[in-house]
Amino acid sequence: MLPAMNIAPIHIDTLLYGIGIAAVAVNAASGVLEAGRRPFDLFGMIVVALVAALGGGSLRDVLLDRTVFWIADQSYLIAAIVAGLLTFTVVRVLRLPARLFVLPDAVGLALFTVSGTQAAMALGAPWLVASLMGVITGVFGGILRDVLCNQVPLVFSSELYATASWAGALLLVGLVSWGVPTGWAALAGGASVLVIRMGAIFFGWRLPVFIARP
Amino acid sequence: MLPAMNIAPIHIDTLLYGIGIAAVAVNAASGVLEAGRRPFDLFGMIVVALVAALGGGSLRDVLLDRTVFWIADQSYLIAAIVAGLLTFTVVRVLRLPARLFVLPDAVGLALFTVSGTQAAMALGAPWLVASLMGVITGVFGGILRDVLCNQVPLVFSSELYATASWAGALLLVGLVSWGVPTGWAALAGGASVLVIRMGAIFFGWRLPVFIARP
Amino acid sequence: MLPAMNIAPIHIDTLLYGIGIAAVAVNAASGVLEAGRRPFDLFGMIVVALVAALGGGSLRDVLLDRTVFWIADQSYLIAAIVAGLLTFTVVRVLRLPARLFVLPDAVGLALFTVSGTQAAMALGAPWLVASLMGVITGVFGGILRDVLCNQVPLVFSSELYATASWAGALLLVGLVSWGVPTGWAALAGGASVLVIRMGAIFFGWRLPVFIARP
Repeated sequence: MLPAMNIAPIHIDTLLYGIGIAAVAVNAASGVLEAGRRPFDLFGMIVVALVAALGGGSLRDVLLDRTVFWIADQSYLIAAIVAGLLTFTVVRVLRLPARLFVLPDAVGLALFTVSGTQAAMALGAPWLVASLMGVITGVFGGILRDVLCNQVPLVFSSELYATASWAGALLLVGLVSWGVPTGWAALAGGASVLVIRMGAIFFGWRLPVFIARP
Repeated sequence: MLPAMNIAPIHIDTLLYGIGIAAVAVNAASGVLEAGRRPFDLFGMIVVALVAALGGGSLRDVLLDRTVFWIADQSYLIAAIVAGLLTFTVVRVLRLPARLFVLPDAVGLALFTVSGTQAAMALGAPWLVASLMGVITGVFGGILRDVLCNQVPLVFSSELYATASWAGALLLVGLVSWGVPTGWAALAGGASVLVIRMGAIFFGWRLPVFIARP
Repeated sequence: MLPAMNIAPIHIDTLLYGIGIAAVAVNAASGVLEAGRRPFDLFGMIVVALVAALGGGSLRDVLLDRTVFWIADQSYLIAAIVAGLLTFTVVRVLRLPARLFVLPDAVGLALFTVSGTQAAMALGAPWLVASLMGVITGVFGGILRDVLCNQVPLVFSSELYATASWAGALLLVGLVSWGVPTGWAALAGGASVLVIRMGAIFFGWRLPVFIARP
């Protein structure tokens, strides 16, 4: 999941690794929250949590023919399961509103986008493919989560979700190709995902919508 | 699909192979029964049957980067198609109730769980990943079947379906790591899947459910 | 996507390549048209377009463990995005009816079926697997498109869609195994897909349907 490891100094690796684990945990929590609106049992919820947390990265790895990240390193799997169980317990007891998760979810989107784009670039993927891998990593977990819950993926109609991801991924790819060090490019790309997503939520930024004739 | 082949004596291999074919056939039948409630044509039903029968194992093989089992051995594909066509014909003529398939379906779940877990262990996957591969093999065919039929996967809310699979897979992994021979561990794991699933159906065993606030 | 390259003379390759690009573009357009009936934003529509255009071929490549075609050659990805954006613009301005796309869609189905079957044969897949890879390439883009839009895949109930694909793929495999040159076999296979599909649309050819008891 973090292919830049042999480029960046060790403490950045550790930071990126922790960030990756955090992103997985946040997405697992979002899966439980979504599944919780339906009459799923505990295990069904955990499956949805795992799909939400690991689905995007798994799809990226399968498409790029890399070892799937959570098979290579079980920690991601454990983080997703623990986060799912914790969310299940906490939400049940405290009855937290789902809106609370908007910020961590946006952070997760930024992290997944950056790590996905970097993974593809490290394998020598061309720019458009690399940026798309960032988007796939960022949003496909959520898409698969919604498909499993039998609803239209929120991502497609929600406030600049995938758009924020793609913009950040393109910025990252562009900066790297212009010679900016990977670490700074990743920071800029991730930050722009966050800013666009937050702007969409709090200021109502939107892309055009059209409804075709039946 | 049966990676333990060079460990176990030949007659156990043959048994496991036959069991694998039977599991594929049973799942194909479940696909036709599910698709049959919708206005699909014969071919659509066969596609749903194939996805139900081969989807879980395919996902496992793709994630583990093995050759997909039904591409390596066409027999599985043929078994799924024949079983699908047979079910289509028989159900149409005899009008059997779907409840009849609960027992073979539980047997299929047990078989897929065992074969999936063994496949992952043979590739050296860590215990949690190995057990999850058993679950994926066991339940993802059914999940994909329901997604294609545009309904919430039955697995998530039905009686200890995935739970039975995971419990059996964990037992199998645990027994093997404690030195129990693969054959006996597989038997114990598979049997426990069956027992839990049957207990859930006939005695109403359940996991906790929670419905989150909207 | 075009594995016959080193067999056929160069101008056939170029033709097949152009045809592959065209098929991707047509499927992307169908994705936008389908997504356009829902309140997706521009980006959501592009994602659905990409899945419709590239999903079937990606699934085929992942199952066959080949490099995914649009990662190996970015042109497909660009064709899909451009076609998606163009359709979005044109449909919005001109308000074309969706029925217009029936013919190009059938051509796309024929092209995908042929290229998918050929790709699998080139890798030495047995006949049934090879023909199924043609079907997967031809119809899974549309299936995934409909799953993302949360509806029952049109393919399963529509006029001989997947059936036409499978019949053409089997004809292609059969002709090649009888010694017919690949180019002619591909032409015959592709043409039969078109004829069956058009016959189904205009003359109402159908496969039997059955609705099981609940």
